[in-house]
Amino acid sequence: MNESQERERVLESSDSNRHARPLRYAQSVAFDAPFPLQRGGCLPDLTVVYETYGKLNAAGDNAVLMCHALSGDSHVARHDEADDPGWWDLVVGPGRAIDTDRYFVICPNLLGGCRGTTGPNSLNPATGRPYGADFPVITVADMVEAQRLLLDRLGIERLRCAVGSSLGGFMVLDWATRLPDRLAGALVLAAAPRLTSQALAFDIVARNAIIRDPHFHGGQYYDHPAGPVVGLALARMLGHITYLSREAMMQKFDANRLRPHDIQTQFETKFSVGSYLAYQADRFGERFDANSYLTLSMALDLFDLGATPAELAANLARSRCRWLLISFSTDWLFPAFQSRELVGTLLAHGRPVSYCNVASDCGHDAFLLPDDLASYGDLMRSFLANLEAVPDPSADRCTADGCACDTENHSLTSIFHHHHRLDYDHIVELIPPGASVLDLGCGSGGLLARLRGRGHERLVGVELDERALRTCVCRGLDVVQDDVNRGLPDFADRQFDFVVLSQTLQTVMDVRRVLREMLRVGRRAVVSFPNLGYHKLRRQLAEEGRAPRVFPGEGYHWYNTPNVRFLTLADFEQLCRDEGYTILQRLALDTATDRPVDHDPNLDADVAIAVLSR
Amino acid sequence: MNESQERERVLESSDSNRHARPLRYAQSVAFDAPFPLQRGGCLPDLTVVYETYGKLNAAGDNAVLMCHALSGDSHVARHDEADDPGWWDLVVGPGRAIDTDRYFVICPNLLGGCRGTTGPNSLNPATGRPYGADFPVITVADMVEAQRLLLDRLGIERLRCAVGSSLGGFMVLDWATRLPDRLAGALVLAAAPRLTSQALAFDIVARNAIIRDPHFHGGQYYDHPAGPVVGLALARMLGHITYLSREAMMQKFDANRLRPHDIQTQFETKFSVGSYLAYQADRFGERFDANSYLTLSMALDLFDLGATPAELAANLARSRCRWLLISFSTDWLFPAFQSRELVGTLLAHGRPVSYCNVASDCGHDAFLLPDDLASYGDLMRSFLANLEAVPDPSADRCTADGCACDTENHSLTSIFHHHHRLDYDHIVELIPPGASVLDLGCGSGGLLARLRGRGHERLVGVELDERALRTCVCRGLDVVQDDVNRGLPDFADRQFDFVVLSQTLQTVMDVRRVLREMLRVGRRAVVSFPNLGYHKLRRQLAEEGRAPRVFPGEGYHWYNTPNVRFLTLADFEQLCRDEGYTILQRLALDTATDRPVDHDPNLDADVAIAVLSR
Repeated sequence: MNESQERERVLESSDSNRHARPLRYAQSVAFDAPFPLQRGGCLPDLTVVYETYGKLNAAGDNAVLMCHALSGDSHVARHDEADDPGWWDLVVGPGRAIDTDRYFVICPNLLGGCRGTTGPNSLNPATGRPYGADFPVITVADMVEAQRLLLDRLGIERLRCAVGSSLGGFMVLDWATRLPDRLAGALVLAAAPRLTSQALAFDIVARNAIIRDPHFHGGQYYDHPAGPVVGLALARMLGHITYLSREAMMQKFDANRLRPHDIQTQFETKFSVGSYLAYQADRFGERFDANSYLTLSMALDLFDLGATPAELAANLARSRCRWLLISFSTDWLFPAFQSRELVGTLLAHGRPVSYCNVASDCGHDAFLLPDDLASYGDLMRSFLANLEAVPDPSADRCTADGCACDTENHSLTSIFHHHHRLDYDHIVELIPPGASVLDLGCGSGGLLARLRGRGHERLVGVELDERALRTCVCRGLDVVQDDVNRGLPDFADRQFDFVVLSQTLQTVMDVRRVLREMLRVGRRAVVSFPNLGYHKLRRQLAEEGRAPRVFPGEGYHWYNTPNVRFLTLADFEQLCRDEGYTILQRLALDTATDRPVDHDPNLDADVAIAVLSR
Repeated sequence: MNESQERERVLESSDSNRHARPLRYAQSVAFDAPFPLQRGGCLPDLTVVYETYGKLNAAGDNAVLMCHALSGDSHVARHDEADDPGWWDLVVGPGRAIDTDRYFVICPNLLGGCRGTTGPNSLNPATGRPYGADFPVITVADMVEAQRLLLDRLGIERLRCAVGSSLGGFMVLDWATRLPDRLAGALVLAAAPRLTSQALAFDIVARNAIIRDPHFHGGQYYDHPAGPVVGLALARMLGHITYLSREAMMQKFDANRLRPHDIQTQFETKFSVGSYLAYQADRFGERFDANSYLTLSMALDLFDLGATPAELAANLARSRCRWLLISFSTDWLFPAFQSRELVGTLLAHGRPVSYCNVASDCGHDAFLLPDDLASYGDLMRSFLANLEAVPDPSADRCTADGCACDTENHSLTSIFHHHHRLDYDHIVELIPPGASVLDLGCGSGGLLARLRGRGHERLVGVELDERALRTCVCRGLDVVQDDVNRGLPDFADRQFDFVVLSQTLQTVMDVRRVLREMLRVGRRAVVSFPNLGYHKLRRQLAEEGRAPRVFPGEGYHWYNTPNVRFLTLADFEQLCRDEGYTILQRLALDTATDRPVDHDPNLDADVAIAVLSR
């Protein structure tokens, strides 16, 4: 199924939406009491339309709530072979990442939407006509409250997880921070603490296009033969541009700029990109209500999890769940730095979070497309699986059923092989029981898993390699994707007892900054590195006249080693003196014999481990 | 003057533009003959309105043509203190980068515009009413032809330079490739071979907003009390978003999202970014004609300097001028990779070109703003100065009057100091007279200037550091900004006799790729590098147990050296054998004595220079 089919499938219909087909499996609940709104006022009543998949288990603790995005609806997936496609069949279904054999999946249509849940096209009991422009301004919190009423009615006290992307991601953020006891996990894709001013600006243009359409009739167009078809199409075309990456548009249209593929549309006949967008916009107009577009887009724009860092922190600190955040590298509508802002705030407040910026060509739409499913789907599956129970502390293997991650890879990192384990043996001994640990360049989590096995609870990893990171999530570890060379801007001062950098110091460019950052974030730093002063290495240069083949030597040469820094133990000690760091403990090893070296370690040890403090 | 003032100053008026003030210094010429159009048909007559600054010299060779962008006009700068501001006062004027004391500056209003030159708001002689929707589809080439007629009338056979950004940049590209004998220099800012599909898509939405405005009346709105004010405002708001970088929008609006600053606009009252854009759009509507917007935007969209790489190459290869291309790092409407496409094609066809991707926060609008003027202004000034004459081949100093570049910096590169000169002495001797040379990591052009002094003509540099690059342009050298670690994708096979990498090999990560690329682009490669096998360095490790302090040693340590690769001469020779490269010549130097080392160079030389072939 290609993107256009994905995004633009003609969905089924609800009452006032003239062209859309009915949602066959939709259920609905009605609440007769007034529904109060966050910004004041209330709706006289509330109907919530939803679909469910799978079964609620006896404990009632396997419910997963799906929060759809602006143009979605309750039909997240097909219910059976004969059913119409859902908007996220790729992810939701038997055996899929959100496995309906395992979870009870609930997907309600949003408050303010146009597919059955109360929205501008619903009848206003006060007038007997559709609300239209009389529908009040609603917020993301109002949408969440409508979902909460539904869950109360269904008897679900606590969700296994709430899942959402884009506007749906905003809803998950609201769930996790305003109703923290109601969910064990929060899974947020392609979201942000708030829209960027750029994204906000696009929405403003789009809303003006609708409102200034002469067929808008101040929002009371339901009695007229035509609604604001042109304005809605302009809004949708504009939105669609922002959902795609520039790369994806180039791939799709650059070769045939001037050849529209026989697509009939009133808007564009010259340029293929225009006829594509216009065709999609025409289809959108057939299934979506302009007033809902205005209502939901305004809720999107008004959302702000914290206008200041302190406010954002106060909100996120209220959360009690585990978090997985996913961004997509070419998403410029909800750019990765905004997910990082959330991740950084969660980390700084000690909340358990994993984060991956999935390398993707697909822009904001990536979460709807199969291209990167192997990455984001696996992450989601693993994260959900690890919410089930406290992970087995001794587990050194992946705990997710059906996980595709390479178990062999569990004992490897992206660049270093089994040598690694040796210094882990010593590092775990240097860290006192119960200490909190941040492992920089954690690879696939070998050291963290060892520490977890020894009873450490507060453990976080940082890793750049996406595959290694997926393995960490699979193992139930908290790990965030980042490049240590950036420093540790996401972490607060003195946040960990120990910050570990094992066999990675020699791969960072700005050594002093990384050490400084480690000793800002941790009370202690543990650093292990290969010693260039080791006698065999000295001999390679002195006698053979060749560049010493420093760890990881095998398969690497001077021209392709991951190392960019070459240091002896003496060099390191000198730097620590110059920077005013105290070496509390120092271990020098000859890894060939795995023996500590006491006499002349700068000559006889090939690996050094040091515990530092300021 | 801030950006809003810059871009949105209320300009002066022409005939059909009801609100704009008159252009006091504008002159005009009328051509009574039919004006044929590229896509067929012709205009029955043509008027070109223009302004001039400075004086044409006796030789008639100091004329600089300014090509304005979509919303500009002939008033590029103020003519005197009392005059209204021009749209590029920052750059054009006495003593400015485009110095009107030195150059005769001509700025015509574009064909299809609305400030006096024939356009949709001009009277159609056939009907006696404005053309309106009857104005034909015109192209960038048509606009250039109108300018050519003007220059013919003014008796200017050959321009010193044509200058333009955005749509104006497209015009300069057309000038240089279709009328190659008419200009000595082409200065192109923030342009591209064609719009990206993304930029094209925005234009399509914008044009639809205008055309579908009920007050558009099929383009014949001049007799109506109101034109398509709403559609034009929507188009302008959308365009404005694309002119700004996300960074600039965040800086401007993020702190006050919900506080519009008492700006009266019909479009937005809630969000500050919206009220700003809408206010600017309202002002734009007062001075600009919607039909002109449609006409010029379509010309922009239709421009394509070559639908295939071969076509692009054939067009650019027709040019006979020197080129300076400038992009801005945060410009996402005309992204840097598109300027690189032009630069790469010019380089591959041996055309003299310099290129800089100016590090900027300001997006596409950067060329209108003072923030980065020190960078793009200096480049423009230097480039123009060096078009005056064949540069003095012996000049080792900057030739531009009033240049702000640091002459001291001329003998330095970004990271390496006077040590450099020593290996230059030998490298120039290794390169036979007249050979073409590409210098990778050329710094501020020391080696290239030396070679020019020895009579070499085809010389190109590649440098990452913007300041060093500016010095090169100041010296009249051709240099393009790039990172050698990317390889040499912009260069064709066997394009140079020699490719030089002096004291830079040790700073690149993928050594093998860089060598491979050098020997693809050049018949010979010259590589110089510090030899880790040098006895003093061996001793530092073997006897002192410290990391050898390889060149550039002074001020650098193991933790902050620019070097990331460490190799001995023997290592290098081994790699050449492994890769199948022939070392044609090898020079080993002891730079302390500046003596060649014959016996055991791997021990006694601190610098090695090798000439390689495949």
